Amino acid sequence: MTVAALPGPIDPPRRLLMGPGPIDAYPSVLRALSAPLTGQYDPFMTATMTETQELYRGVWGTANDATVVVDGTSRAGIEAAIVSLVRPGDRVLVPIFGRFGHLLAEISERAMAEVHTIHTDWGQVFTTAAIEEAIVRVKPTLLAIVQGDTSTTMLQPLDEIGELCRRHGVLFYTDATASLGGNPFEADQWGLDAATAGLQKCLGGPSGAAPITLSDRAVEVVTARKKIEAGIREPGDPSAPDFVRSNYFDLGMILDYWGPRRLNHHTEAASMLYAARECARLLLLEGREAVIERHRVAGEAMLAGVQALGLEVFGDVAHKMTNIVAVAIPDGVPGDAARAALLEDFGIEIGTSFGPLAGKVWRIGTMGYNARRDAVLTTLAALETVLRRFGVAVPAGGGVEAATDAYAGA
Amino acid sequence: MTVAALPGPIDPPRRLLMGPGPIDAYPSVLRALSAPLTGQYDPFMTATMTETQELYRGVWGTANDATVVVDGTSRAGIEAAIVSLVRPGDRVLVPIFGRFGHLLAEISERAMAEVHTIHTDWGQVFTTAAIEEAIVRVKPTLLAIVQGDTSTTMLQPLDEIGELCRRHGVLFYTDATASLGGNPFEADQWGLDAATAGLQKCLGGPSGAAPITLSDRAVEVVTARKKIEAGIREPGDPSAPDFVRSNYFDLGMILDYWGPRRLNHHTEAASMLYAARECARLLLLEGREAVIERHRVAGEAMLAGVQALGLEVFGDVAHKMTNIVAVAIPDGVPGDAARAALLEDFGIEIGTSFGPLAGKVWRIGTMGYNARRDAVLTTLAALETVLRRFGVAVPAGGGVEAATDAYAGA
Repeated sequence: MTVAALPGPIDPPRRLLMGPGPIDAYPSVLRALSAPLTGQYDPFMTATMTETQELYRGVWGTANDATVVVDGTSRAGIEAAIVSLVRPGDRVLVPIFGRFGHLLAEISERAMAEVHTIHTDWGQVFTTAAIEEAIVRVKPTLLAIVQGDTSTTMLQPLDEIGELCRRHGVLFYTDATASLGGNPFEADQWGLDAATAGLQKCLGGPSGAAPITLSDRAVEVVTARKKIEAGIREPGDPSAPDFVRSNYFDLGMILDYWGPRRLNHHTEAASMLYAARECARLLLLEGREAVIERHRVAGEAMLAGVQALGLEVFGDVAHKMTNIVAVAIPDGVPGDAARAALLEDFGIEIGTSFGPLAGKVWRIGTMGYNARRDAVLTTLAALETVLRRFGVAVPAGGGVEAATDAYAGA
Repeated sequence: MTVAALPGPIDPPRRLLMGPGPIDAYPSVLRALSAPLTGQYDPFMTATMTETQELYRGVWGTANDATVVVDGTSRAGIEAAIVSLVRPGDRVLVPIFGRFGHLLAEISERAMAEVHTIHTDWGQVFTTAAIEEAIVRVKPTLLAIVQGDTSTTMLQPLDEIGELCRRHGVLFYTDATASLGGNPFEADQWGLDAATAGLQKCLGGPSGAAPITLSDRAVEVVTARKKIEAGIREPGDPSAPDFVRSNYFDLGMILDYWGPRRLNHHTEAASMLYAARECARLLLLEGREAVIERHRVAGEAMLAGVQALGLEVFGDVAHKMTNIVAVAIPDGVPGDAARAALLEDFGIEIGTSFGPLAGKVWRIGTMGYNARRDAVLTTLAALETVLRRFGVAVPAGGGVEAATDAYAGA
């Protein structure tokens, strides 16, 4: 590329991101990203790491000492949890109710686990009894289950599963990427052994950092498999024979880096750490319950709005996440062309889905910074226009009115 | 944490980061980090990904189509390369001349490779003959070698190794994290099959994104091992029996995400992508040779400065990276206390090292944004003051004068 051909500084177009995520980051999270760097052992940096751990304890609802951030996208957090908790040959049970259940199974399979899955129709969740039946039958080491699967919008109730897992001696892991912050989550009260997330949904940050929390029981497992690399190993350091088959995702080493020993592992991604810290700080500043309530209200308004536009809502609405709704693309409407029109004419992004739902539904999110009245109403007004353009008979102003009413009654 | 106890927005102290990295990011990289997010399939986002690929071809000196960024720190790039290129049981040869050679061996071992190492004293590099002898003896699938090992400051010559590897049918991978941008690198001319880096050294960005480039030969290997996950797999998609033992680091899937198929994998870490793009853009705007020359001149000035202060330089100076120098901590000086004084009184960070050099040397970097005359002179002035405070007889103004002369003669 010649100098003359080089592009200018990054200059993204104005967007309102109302899809399944990423969504617009909170303005103060964007500002945090541009804070100057500091060295990884600078007292300021280590204090910031410790502070971030404490903030995320508040977000997760946990007293877990092992509450840190993995440097990678939400999928990196999932892989770190699974590859560190599961030995090759261990049995893992994955109840699948959408695409991200498949991902947990896939990652467990890559970790050489013996993977058992149970399935429910897309748009439904599992009963506690169905999960217990499978646990009794499979006798897994680990239960890995998604809390909120954006592909179907469903929210799996988890509050009874921890007790179940404890009773059967099973480790309990959940991927809360899509749900955390916008729906209740109680790591300790629900008996979670591991939970992971990303910033790019209800936490209102960019993709690229994965908050994770581990119970003491989980820490015992990962610590027993720790392997300290030769370049920095000291006499007496452990080197387990059944070591984790990844260096980057070895949670034992990651915990040593975040813990008092500050043993060098990766070089902490400082900018993403600053963003992760700001996401948690904003959430706790507004109040955990208040943020969930804001998501609940925005989600109900969006639901009322799309229903008033005559769109059919996908799945079991009683088990829907607050922060996303899927609607059937009306007959005869070219789904992708309609989404492109929303993007081009209004700068608004909504999503489609995956697998059996690809091209069949649109997914509309109301997450994090965008769980806002003006974002909901603007999206509904634009959607109405686009639907009409593609020949759908929609009541004039009906979506906005229904959402306004929902806000008024909330 | 109660609301009253919550910390304020992130507000790092002023620092001049003259250690082994991270170093201060270029101001425009910090600005790029705070650009608004866009959706991962937004035409702007996909165009930005494609543009970033082209920029990094210029940085690496390659025409490789498979030139992308892995979402994680430099260590994530290393693991992606190794775990995707190496099958369990494959022989990997790692010539080790510092801590990060140990890391390549460690990651290969985690990938279940049969790892063979050769060693040279810390402070030295390998001859081509020594590497060839080991290749003939070990017959590895992959040669994995660090280009610049910050732990010792040494720069391994690589220009003859590609031909050697080609002749013996060995894949040739290097970790250029510490060296890329500040020292010559010619991926195609040197016959590299894979190379990875991070942003936090000579590229002048934050840790958290790992540029990577793969030759067609390497792409063949990773593509043959590709496994498309069940949630998005379509009829006819391959699922290799010897699949990569990681989902997050499966380069076949990562290339599909960056390539024309845009097959969903992770959610791209947009802010880090913006930063990575800006690092490459700045480098090409200044000119690749000009940036290396700036590093060479700054490095020589720093070298002259520390020598004029009477500090003994560690290792084979003829094979030193441009961008870092290690000096023996003078007898009787408490190394960590002196570093703490530099940080507290002047806001300047320098580093120590690892393993056999821990507490024995200081490492002083002149990288990326900080490969600047004022950064070099300020560091030398502050170091002189601190050395004198700890009882070392140093010539007044000698370090600054020698560095000034070096700049004048450059």
